[in-house]
Amino acid sequence: MKLATLRLPRRTTAARIDGDHAVEVGAPDVGALLADPGWRDVAAAADGPKHPLSSADLAPVVPRPGKIICVGLNYRNHILEMGRELPEYPTLFAKYAEALIGPYDDIALPAVSQAMDWEAELAVIVGAEARHVSPEQAPAAIAGYSVLNDVTARDYQNRTLQWLQGKTFEDSTPFGPYLVTPDELTGPMSMQCEVDGEVVQQADTADLVFGPAQLISYLSEIFTLRPGDVIATGTPGGVGHARKPPRYLIDGSKVVTRIAGLGELINTARRSA
Amino acid sequence: MKLATLRLPRRTTAARIDGDHAVEVGAPDVGALLADPGWRDVAAAADGPKHPLSSADLAPVVPRPGKIICVGLNYRNHILEMGRELPEYPTLFAKYAEALIGPYDDIALPAVSQAMDWEAELAVIVGAEARHVSPEQAPAAIAGYSVLNDVTARDYQNRTLQWLQGKTFEDSTPFGPYLVTPDELTGPMSMQCEVDGEVVQQADTADLVFGPAQLISYLSEIFTLRPGDVIATGTPGGVGHARKPPRYLIDGSKVVTRIAGLGELINTARRSA
Repeated sequence: MKLATLRLPRRTTAARIDGDHAVEVGAPDVGALLADPGWRDVAAAADGPKHPLSSADLAPVVPRPGKIICVGLNYRNHILEMGRELPEYPTLFAKYAEALIGPYDDIALPAVSQAMDWEAELAVIVGAEARHVSPEQAPAAIAGYSVLNDVTARDYQNRTLQWLQGKTFEDSTPFGPYLVTPDELTGPMSMQCEVDGEVVQQADTADLVFGPAQLISYLSEIFTLRPGDVIATGTPGGVGHARKPPRYLIDGSKVVTRIAGLGELINTARRSA
Repeated sequence: MKLATLRLPRRTTAARIDGDHAVEVGAPDVGALLADPGWRDVAAAADGPKHPLSSADLAPVVPRPGKIICVGLNYRNHILEMGRELPEYPTLFAKYAEALIGPYDDIALPAVSQAMDWEAELAVIVGAEARHVSPEQAPAAIAGYSVLNDVTARDYQNRTLQWLQGKTFEDSTPFGPYLVTPDELTGPMSMQCEVDGEVVQQADTADLVFGPAQLISYLSEIFTLRPGDVIATGTPGGVGHARKPPRYLIDGSKVVTRIAGLGELINTARRSA
């Protein structure tokens, strides 16, 4: 099953994607849908108003997650690219919901940063509460997967020891287009990021140091994961900051972020006034 | 004006503190109250059911902030204690709402950490949207001030380069007891943290490197601050981790965190099963 959040003229709605149509499922967004423990059955059975997907305006698939947990240094090749050793523990940081944009929205390049960079990531969306769960129990807490580009202001990321301020610029982070449930997926997925038609990142989720189940288990020792929470699992090698010379997004840069089986984000970077 | 969030048998309520009574103001918590642009007048005029403060069960003053933004290395004496230089930019990190507890609740010492430490902090509670505001405009976005203890798992904080995982253990962070509006306060405030009756931190908010207005202005360049957002402005010297030998909270440790004019948090640390 594929789910999305659609923007309609005076509201948003969660929808099930049936081929080339989106079918309303009776919740204002996918986050609200997931808060219902029976969300799978509700979504599967829904028979609400239909909208052609070709003209749909998609919001971030979960517009206001309770928590967005980001993982750094989680692809073997990216860790080596940054000159670091394979980690014993996941590196965790946060992003606020204000950063999220829809899968086809413009990425806002803030006036104060000259170093906005791409980071294609597999996103895990939580579908049930999880606290003190083992890696074996963790998959039951996964609602599905999606695509996220953790666009990062490298200048702000590196202003201090803590990355948060470079990771959470308003309207910087495309997220979607869909939540795809695990039953639709088989094994590791290939991921690509293109900037202006050039493939800049190319990886396979099999290269993750800490996979979704391990991350959920680890996080659940620290706090309760709740439906709608999002885990951005980290980016592979190929970021612009690691190039010599570095390359950053500029006004008009077209960024395509895709994961096989999950769809793609298509975004244009726009310099804010 | 002083506001609090009270736990009642089947609900919570925002309340105005009038002497030794709490008067319900018609919103489920202080966060919901602040979402009403007329919150000051609503709260001042409210004449709802009254509860004796002596028996009130207080929740975190804002139970579910949209954002909790924490500032590190922001007291001159703490920076020197940690052996660092005065910063050009504020160090920012996040905490999730799951960490918050009420002003008299038990601090949960997680089974997985043996190094839970205190960090008394002045909290700023946002009362109006703020985006691209100057330090001169920033005070208009401040609803009021409160007390927060950013209790930190030092072992988890230092597992990786990013502090988040040590900063956001469930039920670790007392916050309250009240939101005190700025008109009730005059100038810098003295702050103390006591552990088992011993004063371990003693500072004055005049020692802040980045004050509330500067922080709001800086943050508002990154994202929109919204009513109910909380800024934990950083802790002064005297944390247990900096002692030789280090000292951490143990089962039964009594922690009192007070700021003159804002009240005090009184919490007992309890080891989780």
